Amino acid sequence: MTTSAIGRALVVPVDTGHQRYDILIGSGLLDAAESWQGLPRAARALIVTNTTVAPRYAARLQRALAPHYGTVSVIALPDGERFKDWPTLNLIFDRLLGDGSDRHTVLFALGGGVVGDITGLAAALYMRGVPFVQVPTTLLAQVDSSVGGKTAINHPAGKNMIGAFYQPLRVLCDLDTLRTLPPRELRAGLAEVIKYGPIADAEFLGWIDSRLDALLAGDVDALSHAVRRCCEIKAWVVGQDEREGGLRAILNFGHTFGHAIEAGLGYGQWLHGEAVACGMVMAADLSARLGLVGPDFVLQLRRLVERAGLPVRGPALGAERYLELMRVDKKAQGGEIRFVLIDSPGRAVVRAAPDALVRDVLAAHSG
Amino acid sequence: MTTSAIGRALVVPVDTGHQRYDILIGSGLLDAAESWQGLPRAARALIVTNTTVAPRYAARLQRALAPHYGTVSVIALPDGERFKDWPTLNLIFDRLLGDGSDRHTVLFALGGGVVGDITGLAAALYMRGVPFVQVPTTLLAQVDSSVGGKTAINHPAGKNMIGAFYQPLRVLCDLDTLRTLPPRELRAGLAEVIKYGPIADAEFLGWIDSRLDALLAGDVDALSHAVRRCCEIKAWVVGQDEREGGLRAILNFGHTFGHAIEAGLGYGQWLHGEAVACGMVMAADLSARLGLVGPDFVLQLRRLVERAGLPVRGPALGAERYLELMRVDKKAQGGEIRFVLIDSPGRAVVRAAPDALVRDVLAAHSG
Repeated sequence: MTTSAIGRALVVPVDTGHQRYDILIGSGLLDAAESWQGLPRAARALIVTNTTVAPRYAARLQRALAPHYGTVSVIALPDGERFKDWPTLNLIFDRLLGDGSDRHTVLFALGGGVVGDITGLAAALYMRGVPFVQVPTTLLAQVDSSVGGKTAINHPAGKNMIGAFYQPLRVLCDLDTLRTLPPRELRAGLAEVIKYGPIADAEFLGWIDSRLDALLAGDVDALSHAVRRCCEIKAWVVGQDEREGGLRAILNFGHTFGHAIEAGLGYGQWLHGEAVACGMVMAADLSARLGLVGPDFVLQLRRLVERAGLPVRGPALGAERYLELMRVDKKAQGGEIRFVLIDSPGRAVVRAAPDALVRDVLAAHSG
Repeated sequence: MTTSAIGRALVVPVDTGHQRYDILIGSGLLDAAESWQGLPRAARALIVTNTTVAPRYAARLQRALAPHYGTVSVIALPDGERFKDWPTLNLIFDRLLGDGSDRHTVLFALGGGVVGDITGLAAALYMRGVPFVQVPTTLLAQVDSSVGGKTAINHPAGKNMIGAFYQPLRVLCDLDTLRTLPPRELRAGLAEVIKYGPIADAEFLGWIDSRLDALLAGDVDALSHAVRRCCEIKAWVVGQDEREGGLRAILNFGHTFGHAIEAGLGYGQWLHGEAVACGMVMAADLSARLGLVGPDFVLQLRRLVERAGLPVRGPALGAERYLELMRVDKKAQGGEIRFVLIDSPGRAVVRAAPDALVRDVLAAHSG
């Protein structure tokens, strides 16, 4: 993988073996004509966004796409993780069919992780597959969820349980959209940024530690480097293992505990990034209790998460409820929970752990 | 493609380029141990069937699978095309999650086209994909819907609008299950058998004509030959064009008009095969009006469909409603309906037709 520059954008290529596409990263990309070159032309395009993002960016994207499509429509979904479900997905199908959209219609996902995941699934399923483009407007979506083709909706019993692997044609990360991001959303995105350090790049973890204040302040250079490095790592992992036969599972560091928090509290109570942040501290502690890393690593990560304004203590669901929720995790096998653990800073492993140790972790970090 | 024999089964291989699997065709396959060799082993399997098929075959399949899976559960869905929708699909997800099924759980679709399509989609989407096996028990499913990986549910505005291409690991056609098929279902299946003649094999069309009485009487040799020849043609087409970029669309002969009948009357009023039968007569007539085939071909096909006890006259939806419904067909492009037409007996083409000619066809064959 080679990062290069085209016009004002950095370009990180993704190559899954079956498909190849680019992640464009830069300022001012939303309105730049070159951002939209080379996509398939069609009679119709549909921008899928939410009621928060629509007033800020939908009309701009609509104008930018107008030269390339006969009609560019917009649908604004209700905002929030709790709407990442079938009825909301079906709003997209109703709209596509109502508009007379065909197999060539291109979908554009304009928003955060929920919009990207649900639009990707709509694209995967409408008429058994139409093309789509990711236009992530949150830090979390730019560094993680928009890349790699994981699409999904939630089931009450578990997060992202219903979905598909379906790659976008392009991912366009306009860093300017991060300026309007509420601080809580920026911090939630930083959780996924931090994630890439422990699992893949200890040096990057040090860089985050040293530039955390700039990142929290929304410094464009710092954010640009963070988005780029995260996308490079993600592109590398997805290029090795698109369908999570092995390696890709490391991207789920913090997510086993995190998903249990999200499902246990009800989707949308905690932001996904907040749950992942706390989940990473728990998973790091579990790694230490298994003798993989030292307690200093757990403290270092915990301190970084705390400085980022993210939770380090899980809600009091009770250990049994945590365990029950984690048993439906997609990595589980024959009822045995499998955790992404840190072997040494910058290297992750996936393995099971004794319930007793997991209970110790939950006792230390929740309630 | 080479048809061969293993034990008591004929084997028709399917090779999409990405995946390779076998269609097994024969008598007594359901209970034969060798039918289930070589599939992935797992802690759990789930047989998805319907309330009509379950009492006949579910326990037998459960016994046959028992040696290979820790637990083999059964879910019986409501029977009928009108249940090919999200709430029914979600029953499968609820059950999988309730059972603690993981990514290795194998689904078995035991039933007709609706069961196969909905189970395939459940397999495509549960945890972003689990393995599944088709065990079709109707003629229609054995000759057509179980092969080739098209999965879907219906949307009120259009048939099979929400779905995925997702290939099974194996298709097992036990001809004995056709013995319990109600005559109306057998006839509906014959519609799809007849379909393969005009689009791909004029000689086969002649064979059907000569053996129709045996097929209608449930003669096992005749049915065996029909299932085998249809699967060979379908395997060949799907091997050329898994995702319907071109050639595969010919399998939709009769389906553009047919889907309009199904959606226009409400799913389940006519059986899918009945609607396709009538749709083939309409599409043949449209081919003749465009000068592709002679009127004798239309008469020959119409007579065959009639002899098979299938409808040759569509319901009185009105030409405008037919046209409106056909404009949301998956083959449509920019609002223009594209029909599968017969160029010469045994060869199909996909093309648009003037609305005026389509109205003439509807005036002649509906109401």
